[in-house]
Amino acid sequence: MEPRVHIITLGTPDLAAARRFYVEGLGWEPTMEVPGEIVFLRVGHGLLLGLWDADALERDIDPGAPPGRAAGPAAVTLAHNVGSDAAVAEVLAQAEAAGGTVLKQAQLGDVGFVHGYFADPVGFRWEVAHNPGLVFRADGSVSFVEAE
Amino acid sequence: MEPRVHIITLGTPDLAAARRFYVEGLGWEPTMEVPGEIVFLRVGHGLLLGLWDADALERDIDPGAPPGRAAGPAAVTLAHNVGSDAAVAEVLAQAEAAGGTVLKQAQLGDVGFVHGYFADPVGFRWEVAHNPGLVFRADGSVSFVEAE
Repeated sequence: MEPRVHIITLGTPDLAAARRFYVEGLGWEPTMEVPGEIVFLRVGHGLLLGLWDADALERDIDPGAPPGRAAGPAAVTLAHNVGSDAAVAEVLAQAEAAGGTVLKQAQLGDVGFVHGYFADPVGFRWEVAHNPGLVFRADGSVSFVEAE
Repeated sequence: MEPRVHIITLGTPDLAAARRFYVEGLGWEPTMEVPGEIVFLRVGHGLLLGLWDADALERDIDPGAPPGRAAGPAAVTLAHNVGSDAAVAEVLAQAEAAGGTVLKQAQLGDVGFVHGYFADPVGFRWEVAHNPGLVFRADGSVSFVEAE
């Protein structure tokens, strides 16, 4: 697993309030957004900040998660992108071998690409994903592209 | 405030366990570390991941924080670096104007540089710092340098 964070996701109980702060308040330009669902902002060279409903984030990790299980500062994940579906499972296995806990095995997610989740020993959660629709370029720019 | 995250800090109740996972388990090379206190790993173009004792992190925000107030996934901050001491206060004021809450006004911290903290509307905390000893270069590399 390369030392790389691609996305910092903040799970919020009030997406509209989060959007108001970052987009309208601070003036940051969304890289991509689905109104009412998720907002992505570029926050560095090849780095995105995602604002997402906290319950939706919890359900993406565990479909059985009860509403309100994680809200506010506790609902944080770091995302690590890889280049193939096979690499998702490989990285999850490597994380487990290193002392982590796999929370969601590599699988085709509702969002249309293969991903999984693991937790490090103190509980911080990482998504490992192969998302051909999300391109990180050498110059640091990041784009969401349409699937062919 | 520019849309930029420079450091992702994970507050952990067990720094040794966190270090074992990232450094020994995953094989990530520390960019800088103070044994037993803090570990910095480069996790992207101009992006660091910091592993820090959760109670120390809480006390850096609020010296009166009781031990154990935040542990595990809840203890997360994002850091934003600026180019002057004055800019720290300016960014804190801008964040407050945008709907955030200043948790620690701009001040000379124990670590030897001016910083402050604010929380966004859902409670996610950002450190704003002017740290001349931490250099982010155009090529994406990051270095800690000695003060002159």
